[in-house]
Amino acid sequence: MKITKLAKGISLKRPLEGGNEEQLNVVRQVLSEVKKQGDAALRFYTEKWDGYAPESLRVTEKEIAEAVNALDQQLYSDLAEAAENIRLYHEQQIRTGYHMELGDGSWLGQRVTALDAVGLYVPGGTAAYPSSVLMNVIPAQVAGVQRIVITSPANQSGKLPAGVLVAAHLLGINEIYKVGGAQAIAALAYGTETIAPVDKITGPGNIFVALAKREVFGEVAIDMIAGPSEIAVLADDTAYADEIAADLLSQAEHDVLACAILVTTSEQLAKKVAEEVDKQLKTLPRQEVARASIEKFGAIYVADTLADAVEAINTLAPEHLEILTENAEVIAEQVRHAGGIFIGRYSSEPVGDYFAGTNHVLPTNSTARFASGLSVDDFVKKSSIVYYSGKTWEENAPKIARLARMEGLEGHARAVESRGWEKE
Amino acid sequence: MKITKLAKGISLKRPLEGGNEEQLNVVRQVLSEVKKQGDAALRFYTEKWDGYAPESLRVTEKEIAEAVNALDQQLYSDLAEAAENIRLYHEQQIRTGYHMELGDGSWLGQRVTALDAVGLYVPGGTAAYPSSVLMNVIPAQVAGVQRIVITSPANQSGKLPAGVLVAAHLLGINEIYKVGGAQAIAALAYGTETIAPVDKITGPGNIFVALAKREVFGEVAIDMIAGPSEIAVLADDTAYADEIAADLLSQAEHDVLACAILVTTSEQLAKKVAEEVDKQLKTLPRQEVARASIEKFGAIYVADTLADAVEAINTLAPEHLEILTENAEVIAEQVRHAGGIFIGRYSSEPVGDYFAGTNHVLPTNSTARFASGLSVDDFVKKSSIVYYSGKTWEENAPKIARLARMEGLEGHARAVESRGWEKE
Repeated sequence: MKITKLAKGISLKRPLEGGNEEQLNVVRQVLSEVKKQGDAALRFYTEKWDGYAPESLRVTEKEIAEAVNALDQQLYSDLAEAAENIRLYHEQQIRTGYHMELGDGSWLGQRVTALDAVGLYVPGGTAAYPSSVLMNVIPAQVAGVQRIVITSPANQSGKLPAGVLVAAHLLGINEIYKVGGAQAIAALAYGTETIAPVDKITGPGNIFVALAKREVFGEVAIDMIAGPSEIAVLADDTAYADEIAADLLSQAEHDVLACAILVTTSEQLAKKVAEEVDKQLKTLPRQEVARASIEKFGAIYVADTLADAVEAINTLAPEHLEILTENAEVIAEQVRHAGGIFIGRYSSEPVGDYFAGTNHVLPTNSTARFASGLSVDDFVKKSSIVYYSGKTWEENAPKIARLARMEGLEGHARAVESRGWEKE
Repeated sequence: MKITKLAKGISLKRPLEGGNEEQLNVVRQVLSEVKKQGDAALRFYTEKWDGYAPESLRVTEKEIAEAVNALDQQLYSDLAEAAENIRLYHEQQIRTGYHMELGDGSWLGQRVTALDAVGLYVPGGTAAYPSSVLMNVIPAQVAGVQRIVITSPANQSGKLPAGVLVAAHLLGINEIYKVGGAQAIAALAYGTETIAPVDKITGPGNIFVALAKREVFGEVAIDMIAGPSEIAVLADDTAYADEIAADLLSQAEHDVLACAILVTTSEQLAKKVAEEVDKQLKTLPRQEVARASIEKFGAIYVADTLADAVEAINTLAPEHLEILTENAEVIAEQVRHAGGIFIGRYSSEPVGDYFAGTNHVLPTNSTARFASGLSVDDFVKKSSIVYYSGKTWEENAPKIARLARMEGLEGHARAVESRGWEKE
C-alpha cells in the first residue's frame, strides 16, 4: 500500500459512483418493460441475465425446508444468536410519537406507524449474504411491518444460497422471489401478477440495482444508494499492524471497488501495516479481489498529530471507522461523521458485520456526513395531528389569518375565518 | 365539483409528477454549468430566467434591516408566536441516542449528531413564503445544525419578499442568497466561490427545482420530492359545507396542480359543498388558480359507509387530511396513511400551515404511505458504536468467524481471529 504524508486540510471525500449513460438506459428499459409486461418481463430478463428459466418465481416451502435441513446446526445456532443480538439493539430504536396538551382542550400529536410492506433485495454473485437478510428484516420486524418480501437472483441451477433461505426462515419470512437485478427492483416498485408492490425497497446490489433504486425513488421509498464498502482505521503506535492489515483486507475482499484506508500518527506502524497487507494477501482466498481494491483504492496516510488525523477522517466520513488508539473512547467523541464506529482492538469491524447487533447497512461514499445506517426509523413514518378547540381557534384565528394574508393567500385566511360559534 | 359514488376497493393513489425529458435536460445542463463555472453560471441563469443581474448574490445586512423596519409590528409578533409554537412542537423530536451494556465491559451505542450545514430553498413566484422559512429552519436549529443557508429567487428589481427576510432575521439566519431554480440547488450541492456547499437541501420548488433536487440526491441529502399541495376532507353529515368548501379552496388556491378531495357519507353534504365551492370561488382573489385546480383535480366522493371512506383515504395517503365527523378522534386512529391530520372543525388546515406548531412540509403524491413530514430527524444522522472487550471477543470470535466463512468471506474470519491475549 502506498504511504503518503497527510497534507493539512486535505479532503478525503469519496466521489459518488453514478453509473454511466449506457447502464442507465438499460435500467430504464428494464423498468419500463416490467411495468408493462409484469411477470413475462421478469422471466425474460432472468433467463437472459441470470441464465435460468424459473418454474416458479416464488421460492417454495419445500425449497426452504431443504435448505434448513441441510444447514449445519452450529451455524443455525450462530445465526439465531446474531439475530437475537440484532433484535435487542434495534428494539432500542422503537418510537411511539408524542402528545402535547395546549390548554383549552387543544392538543398536538405525532403518530408513528409502520410501513405496510417492504422489499429486501439480497445480492447474488460471488458470495451469499444471510447476514444481509438479518440486517434488513429485523429492523422492519421491530418496526412492525406486516409484509416483508425478499428477492434475490438464483444461480444457474435456479437455486438461492441455503444460508439466505435459512436466515429468512429463522425470521419467519417466506415470501421470497428468485428475481435479481433492475427487474427485481421494478417488480417491487410497480408490482407484477405474482409480486405485489411494496412501499420501500432496501438492500444493496450492483450498479444496475443501485441505478434502478434511484429511478424508482419517489414511487417507493429506498434506503440509500449503496456504494462499495469502505473501512478507515485511525491508529497510533499502540495498535498492532497485523490486526489492522487483516481488517483492511476484510473490506478489500468484498469488491474491487472497496476502499481501505489507514490514517496513523506512527510512520513505523504505517510501514509495518503495508508489509503485513502484502504478506496476508498471499494466502487470502479472495486475494485477486482484495489486491485490486488495495492497489486502486487502498491508502495509508501519516498525520503529524492525532487532531489532524481525526479531521481527515471527518472529511472522509467513512462507512466503517476503527479507532485503535490510546483513549479510543475519547477520540471517538471527536469524530463527527462515520456510519459505524468500532472502538479498540477487540472490536474488529466484522464483529459488527455479523454479530454484535448494530446494523451493517451503513452509508458509503462519504454520505455519513448526512446519512445513517439502516434502523427502525427506516420502516416507520410519522403523521402530525392537530386538534384545536373552539376556544383556541377563537384566540388564534386573527393571527393565522394575518399570516396567510401576508403570503397573499386570502383563501387560507377565509378558511380559518369560516368557523364560528353562531352555527352551533 | 364533480360528485362521484365511491366504488368499493377503488384506489385514489396519485401519480408521481416526473417532469419531462426536456425539463430534465435543462436541469442537467444547469447543474453541470454551475459545477464548472460557479458564480458566473449563477449570474448567467439568474439574469436569463429571473430577469435581474444581482450586484451581490448574498443579501446584505442593510436589506435585512430595511425589511424588518418596514414590517408591521403586529405581523412581526404573529410570526414570532408561530415560531415559538413550531419550536415547542419540534423540541419533542430531539433524540439523544442510546447506550447498551453487554456485560464484561462491552457496550453498543447509537450516537445522534446534527448535520454540519443545510440549505433551505424558498420558492419565489406569485406568493411569498415566510412560513416556509420557519418550517424549515426551526427543525434544523432544534437539531443543532450550525450553518443554515437560505436561497430564493428575487423579483425583477432584485428584491426578496420582506416577509422572508424578516422570518430569517427572527430566527437569526443571515446567510441568504438571491438565487433560485435549478441553479440554486446546484450551488447548494456543489458549492461556488460565494456559496459553500451544504449537506442537505430542503424546501419546495417548481418542477425544475424538484428535478434538480432529485439529480443531486446522493451527493447531498434532500428532504423529499415535493409535489403540488393536496387536501382530503373526510366528513359526515355533522360537518358544515361552507367550512369544507373554504378549506378545499385554501389548498386549490396554491397551484393549478393542487388537489382537493372530499370523501363523505352524506350525499346532501356533497351537493352543498359543490354549491359552496362555486359560490366562494367568485370572490376569491386567486380564483383563476383555484378554479383550474378544482376543475382538473377536485373531486367529491360519496361513500356508502364511513369504513369505505376511511379505506379510500388510506389509498390516497393525502398530504393533509381533515376529519370532520362524529368521534373524529376515533376515526383518526383508523387512518394509516396521511402526512398531517386535522381533527374537528376548529382545526382548519391553514392552522397547521402557519401557526399550531406542526410542520407544513408534508409528503405529497400519496407518498405518505412511506414518507413523513419534515422534522428534527431530517437534520440529524446516527452513528452506531461497538466496543467489545477482550472477554466478549474471546467468547464470540468463533461464532463470528463461522458466519463469515458461511458467506465465503475468509478475510472477515481472519480479521476477527487475528486478535489475541498473547500480544498484550
